[in-house]
Amino acid sequence: MDAARRGFLRRSIALLTASGLISRRPTATDAAEGLEVPPWMKSPGAGFNDYGAPAKYESKVTRTFGRSQPGTTGSGAIRTPLEALEGTITPSGLHFERSHSGVPDIDPAKHRLLIHGMVKRPLIFTIDALLRYPMVARVHFIECSGNSQLLYQPTPPNLSVGQTHGLVSCSEWTGVPLRLLLEEAGVEPGASWILAEGADAAAMSRSIPMAKAMDDAMLALFQNGERLRPENGYPVRLFLPGWEGNMSVKWLRRLKVVAAAIMTKDETSRYTDLQADGKSLMFTYPMEVKSLITRPSHGMTLPGPGLHQISGIAWSGEGKIRRVEITTDGGRTWVGAALTEPVLPRSLTRFRLAWRWDGGATVLKSRAIDDAGNTQPERDAFIARHGNNAIFHCNAIQAWSVAASGEVKHVYA
Amino acid sequence: MDAARRGFLRRSIALLTASGLISRRPTATDAAEGLEVPPWMKSPGAGFNDYGAPAKYESKVTRTFGRSQPGTTGSGAIRTPLEALEGTITPSGLHFERSHSGVPDIDPAKHRLLIHGMVKRPLIFTIDALLRYPMVARVHFIECSGNSQLLYQPTPPNLSVGQTHGLVSCSEWTGVPLRLLLEEAGVEPGASWILAEGADAAAMSRSIPMAKAMDDAMLALFQNGERLRPENGYPVRLFLPGWEGNMSVKWLRRLKVVAAAIMTKDETSRYTDLQADGKSLMFTYPMEVKSLITRPSHGMTLPGPGLHQISGIAWSGEGKIRRVEITTDGGRTWVGAALTEPVLPRSLTRFRLAWRWDGGATVLKSRAIDDAGNTQPERDAFIARHGNNAIFHCNAIQAWSVAASGEVKHVYA
Repeated sequence: MDAARRGFLRRSIALLTASGLISRRPTATDAAEGLEVPPWMKSPGAGFNDYGAPAKYESKVTRTFGRSQPGTTGSGAIRTPLEALEGTITPSGLHFERSHSGVPDIDPAKHRLLIHGMVKRPLIFTIDALLRYPMVARVHFIECSGNSQLLYQPTPPNLSVGQTHGLVSCSEWTGVPLRLLLEEAGVEPGASWILAEGADAAAMSRSIPMAKAMDDAMLALFQNGERLRPENGYPVRLFLPGWEGNMSVKWLRRLKVVAAAIMTKDETSRYTDLQADGKSLMFTYPMEVKSLITRPSHGMTLPGPGLHQISGIAWSGEGKIRRVEITTDGGRTWVGAALTEPVLPRSLTRFRLAWRWDGGATVLKSRAIDDAGNTQPERDAFIARHGNNAIFHCNAIQAWSVAASGEVKHVYA
Repeated sequence: MDAARRGFLRRSIALLTASGLISRRPTATDAAEGLEVPPWMKSPGAGFNDYGAPAKYESKVTRTFGRSQPGTTGSGAIRTPLEALEGTITPSGLHFERSHSGVPDIDPAKHRLLIHGMVKRPLIFTIDALLRYPMVARVHFIECSGNSQLLYQPTPPNLSVGQTHGLVSCSEWTGVPLRLLLEEAGVEPGASWILAEGADAAAMSRSIPMAKAMDDAMLALFQNGERLRPENGYPVRLFLPGWEGNMSVKWLRRLKVVAAAIMTKDETSRYTDLQADGKSLMFTYPMEVKSLITRPSHGMTLPGPGLHQISGIAWSGEGKIRRVEITTDGGRTWVGAALTEPVLPRSLTRFRLAWRWDGGATVLKSRAIDDAGNTQPERDAFIARHGNNAIFHCNAIQAWSVAASGEVKHVYA
């Protein structure tokens, strides 16, 4: 924090305090030492537990807006409550979930991964075998390409930021570089794609370009330190940093090395982007540069004029976040937000800005710029370019209106 | 990974594969496409859940070695199962727990934090008020100063690495810099300490030097993205990066600004380090540079000679890890391990080394060097210097013996 910003914050806080909005001075009703002794200090607390859980007072902080296709359970998605979180790591219990036929109950001792097709040596791996290979650990976001799809609609949804944009989460993923296993199998000349298949009932399958497989793809075995959660691919998933989530095939069972893309249903009838001119974009892999103000956001009410902290997340499938700009006056002026270090590639980056609200109605927005030079577009420009037939790859700027009452709502502005 | 190491890994893996130790080739008993269809692909899987949990097959991965003082529940500690984890983040459900009178059940709406004593303006904060201040997010380890205390004993404990050393964990912590609140309260001249008090039944209290409070101390509100877990100080804890864990007072309710250290029981009768000469070290704040090989470690059995991955964690309360060296021949030769980037200050750093085991009995050790120039000491030298009256601040090198049978055990060597 530079000296000017620190000075501003200090003055702002002092003013707020003087008006009693944030803290208060002790009064005669407080005990001699300043605070009454609360009931929970008067008897011993709870003992240890083997595997912890959030406080009961946080029971409303759950995955949100779960939606399954009719007649199914678990063919659909459930979202991360972004408005309740801070920092950049998503706790695994709140990681978003997108499944095509529910979460399979896989016995890791019986699970096998096959590498076959155009290779010199087809190979079968147990999980114990995979655990013996060299591993890497990296913090990466993963985002469903269908995230934020409600912004294609003509009117803004009356939903929280998590319900609207919560198909993005961020974890520390640890696993084996796919390149090592492909080198062991020996890829034959002319093999430039890999068909990845999951062990769920949908046998979810995608074609992966060989260049990505040989670059930063990994077989993830651990998520935030512990083994993968079932809904995130236990016991092993493919992980393709920065690319649309469904390509990071969960419950991975087969990698077939092939000469051309297979044109599976999930890269032809689904996960293509129908444009205004009736043509569809296929193989749109990296998730585009994007940002969201998570606090304040739709459904919150500011308690009054004065100092507020704007907090949000930014990410890009093409690299690192270089800059996040915020407008608090509906787009007339934009200022740079502070980025929380370290800023990592293909990871969530937390941004913040201290904002003195004067109590008038206004509109807040954020826009991210990545180190590949991409800038997050305004929604108008995004729709003008892509139309609104699609449901995937929406990275338009999110606007929140703030009413004089303090109420924050989703608007198109 | 440099080219030489990559070449070594590739040759080692190829050799191992040829001997059938890691992967195998498909056989006639596999189906035409190489794998039989497992039962979990034959019907839809489970639906969504609001807050996820680990796979049932991982139910043995729990906090471990919980020990309470006689007649109490929760006055003691329970440990992180380090041998089961990878990467650097500790999932919050497995974060170690050290409490002095159990975990209080604090209603966040009723919790108050008081700053008083030698300040111009005594202040009382609600949790909602704290949430309105500027926040920082940082990845830091926290280690109980009693961690690894069994290494003071004359014979090596017959316990896992988590049971022996699992009073260290690492999270992304998000909260308000303490400096901001002290500046708001206005610290008076001559005030050079702060008494921090918790809202547990022990009213756990420590004196904190003002310099640390004004440097990187924070009031942590979030842990790995979500609000603090109850056993880690919900709804707010003090967090002093790199310093002995008990000073990061949980369930923080009072900060009294004072002129001198208060000499609480937890900095006089406890949390002092009795040396061989009968004198005690007091106020030994930073946790010393340290490392552990977590895999392989005590209780594991290597399946056979060949390529193995040595994996472990290193940390220092004085800064960043500069280097970790590993010996696989009982100390005759040491080689540098690869450090997983980004290497962050006062955070766990994961290190790795590919090791070709020849099948003979040997001893493995790691030693860490931090960027302040400190080197982790051998146990002999550590005991020679400090004696074995103490139970705190043991950062001696951990040795694991590997028998010809593959059995790995804790040894003093």
